[in-house]
Amino acid sequence: MSSVNGFASHGLPRVVVVGGGFGGLQVVRGLQGVPCRILLFDRQNHHLFQPLLYQVATAALSPADVAHPIRSIFRRQENVQVVLGEVAAVDLEARFVRVGGDTVPYDFLVLGAGATHSYFGHPEWAALAPGLKTLDDALEIRRRILLAFEEAELEEDPEARRAKLTFTVVGGGPTGVELAGAIREIAARTIPRDYRRVDTTATRVLLLEGQDRLLPAMGPAASRAASRQLQELGVEVRLGALVTGVEEEGVVVGKELIPSANVLWAAGVQASPLASTLGVRLDRQGKVLVEPDCSVPGHPEVFVIGDMAHLRDPVDGRPVPGVAPAALQMGRFVAGIIRDALARGGPSPVRRPFHYVDKGTMATVGRARAVAEVRGLTLAGFPAWLLWSTVHVAYLIGFRNRLSVLLNWAWQWLFQARGARLITGNPPLKLKRPVDW
Amino acid sequence: MSSVNGFASHGLPRVVVVGGGFGGLQVVRGLQGVPCRILLFDRQNHHLFQPLLYQVATAALSPADVAHPIRSIFRRQENVQVVLGEVAAVDLEARFVRVGGDTVPYDFLVLGAGATHSYFGHPEWAALAPGLKTLDDALEIRRRILLAFEEAELEEDPEARRAKLTFTVVGGGPTGVELAGAIREIAARTIPRDYRRVDTTATRVLLLEGQDRLLPAMGPAASRAASRQLQELGVEVRLGALVTGVEEEGVVVGKELIPSANVLWAAGVQASPLASTLGVRLDRQGKVLVEPDCSVPGHPEVFVIGDMAHLRDPVDGRPVPGVAPAALQMGRFVAGIIRDALARGGPSPVRRPFHYVDKGTMATVGRARAVAEVRGLTLAGFPAWLLWSTVHVAYLIGFRNRLSVLLNWAWQWLFQARGARLITGNPPLKLKRPVDW
Repeated sequence: MSSVNGFASHGLPRVVVVGGGFGGLQVVRGLQGVPCRILLFDRQNHHLFQPLLYQVATAALSPADVAHPIRSIFRRQENVQVVLGEVAAVDLEARFVRVGGDTVPYDFLVLGAGATHSYFGHPEWAALAPGLKTLDDALEIRRRILLAFEEAELEEDPEARRAKLTFTVVGGGPTGVELAGAIREIAARTIPRDYRRVDTTATRVLLLEGQDRLLPAMGPAASRAASRQLQELGVEVRLGALVTGVEEEGVVVGKELIPSANVLWAAGVQASPLASTLGVRLDRQGKVLVEPDCSVPGHPEVFVIGDMAHLRDPVDGRPVPGVAPAALQMGRFVAGIIRDALARGGPSPVRRPFHYVDKGTMATVGRARAVAEVRGLTLAGFPAWLLWSTVHVAYLIGFRNRLSVLLNWAWQWLFQARGARLITGNPPLKLKRPVDW
Repeated sequence: MSSVNGFASHGLPRVVVVGGGFGGLQVVRGLQGVPCRILLFDRQNHHLFQPLLYQVATAALSPADVAHPIRSIFRRQENVQVVLGEVAAVDLEARFVRVGGDTVPYDFLVLGAGATHSYFGHPEWAALAPGLKTLDDALEIRRRILLAFEEAELEEDPEARRAKLTFTVVGGGPTGVELAGAIREIAARTIPRDYRRVDTTATRVLLLEGQDRLLPAMGPAASRAASRQLQELGVEVRLGALVTGVEEEGVVVGKELIPSANVLWAAGVQASPLASTLGVRLDRQGKVLVEPDCSVPGHPEVFVIGDMAHLRDPVDGRPVPGVAPAALQMGRFVAGIIRDALARGGPSPVRRPFHYVDKGTMATVGRARAVAEVRGLTLAGFPAWLLWSTVHVAYLIGFRNRLSVLLNWAWQWLFQARGARLITGNPPLKLKRPVDW
């Protein structure tokens, strides 16, 4: 057994944290040096920097640039054990979580298992229109994007070729905007000279948004700026476009079928199914309706944070958005509550409510373009991109990752090249001989 | 269609090249500017720098560091078309290759489809003991190595834990030596502080070699140096160890079962099955017995290069080794022959034989250690490692890859950290609760 065993003295209060995302990491960090035993569960062995995941999907970055092993983040914090495992259910009354066939008791429980995209009650669309949540999702999307051009190069039928060169991104939130912009740039700037037969600059990229503007979480000015910049890149933005079907041939919007061999899903939010095992009230997206202090009603020892929680801000009454900064702040807040409770040997009678400090929201629109909203001020274009990149690099975990991301961006900026244009996972080989051969 | 179409004038001689490895790339490069049409087939969209693949498998490098999209390598050479596809068979008489359902005729054909490892007639061992040839192989091996430590951390039964912490590498060639050394370093230096319960420094790494020394392709001095350095790292080297079975529980050597949950295969060579479709004489490893000029007997228009070819050197009579430099030289040599033939409008009556210039062979043994043989001189330790790294970085394709590899090595050297410790592909979750919880 390791000599580095932080669990010599048993009987210390047990804190179980589910999820090594932005929120979960902050909870654990906030309990550094506090006399308790922490068990941190995650399905993956790495913390994922979600905001840059689309750059892995679009071959700009490698998985190792946006992910960091959770173990090494906490190698020096001896009161935490990191466990690679999936928590299946919670028993609030008996105070344990179910993992595999086993039960793990807790004194405090923090759930930060996150959310995934929802297919509006059409799970069968998932296979045809992959979403972007994990590294594996990103590699699968990268694979599909790159294969589409390979197959188009060999496709002689003009209609079929056009369909292969048509990408449809469903959902006009940040992820959708960023994916659409990046794909259009790959087609128009990165790869045209690599192909002999097909003109990749003719690639169509459609961005479908059900509401009447992009980036609904931001202000109208930001929405307009995003639309304008995407259109300058050559992305076709369709607002008020409700997807009623996803088929082999393409996407159905209302009655119209848009022939498209590549459909990517960036719409809808569905909280982790773990929430439904609590037996408490959930909102339409399956998020837990938590108390103002992020605790589960009737259970001051259990907290839900990040985009698994539904919480209205006490100040402006608006729902706290499901973004990384909110998860970070909730994590720190809950760690504070647990610290206090451990210090006074029991939950405090009065608890202050969580308040989200919105430091700004932003989204990139292709190379060196972005929109940002900071304290009511709206930025667009290069200044917004500078702000965006600074903030994102600053929040990356690990100096090595920061350096690597900066170098990759510099490279891309200088040479319009993308360093990670690799198809992994054996590609299907629908080969045809070039006609002119 | 693309305006960049290098195939305006049809009727130009057609050169089909199979395989975008070291040999295939040289053939295509050697035909730059030559009036012919080249079709380059590869199963992957990238050229893979095999000599550094083990560093991807051991979490030191990312796939994008050791691979480069074949298309972008030739973006400026307009007489070549790159096709992502697998050539299934060759018809020497009819002069075409079969791809998918299609046939592709040629005037000249160069086969550089490479080789894979052989399981000595036991294909059923492959699932239990993965080999290292493609990026997908490397990611699967990385996954197994990292998962082994995760599972050991949760394993309470001492025997089972010992088996999970026992890695057996079969085959004492360069790949086996490099894998064994790197795994031992991960366990002893990179990750010990990351684990609370298991002592990863107790990890056993066995290297099994059937012959009486490691690196049989090098001299006895190099073999001794490699053994010594591996033992200093804590690797158990077993010579004359013939593997007679691979089972769930471990590896069988002679009558002895070595309990080992992680078996990696780096033994045996088997030429691409494509060779067997030629209907010509093959050696025991399935390699084509080529003429002194690398052509197929009776077919001066067809060439086999790299480790798919069996050729004895005209100077020293020794078989040309299946290493990258030999493939490179064969590729250049064959390109020259085709250039001449095209220039004089037909194959030359007399052809000079291929001669392999051995510039030296080397293998790394963990961090900053290596063995090298250059012109009869044997180097070991740090000097050999310096030479090894310089040569390998120099031969990498793409400045970006070189820079990235150098930075990753510097990082590893300074902090004993490995940047790519990510488990992708959903991990199995055999969870047990920590006993002390």
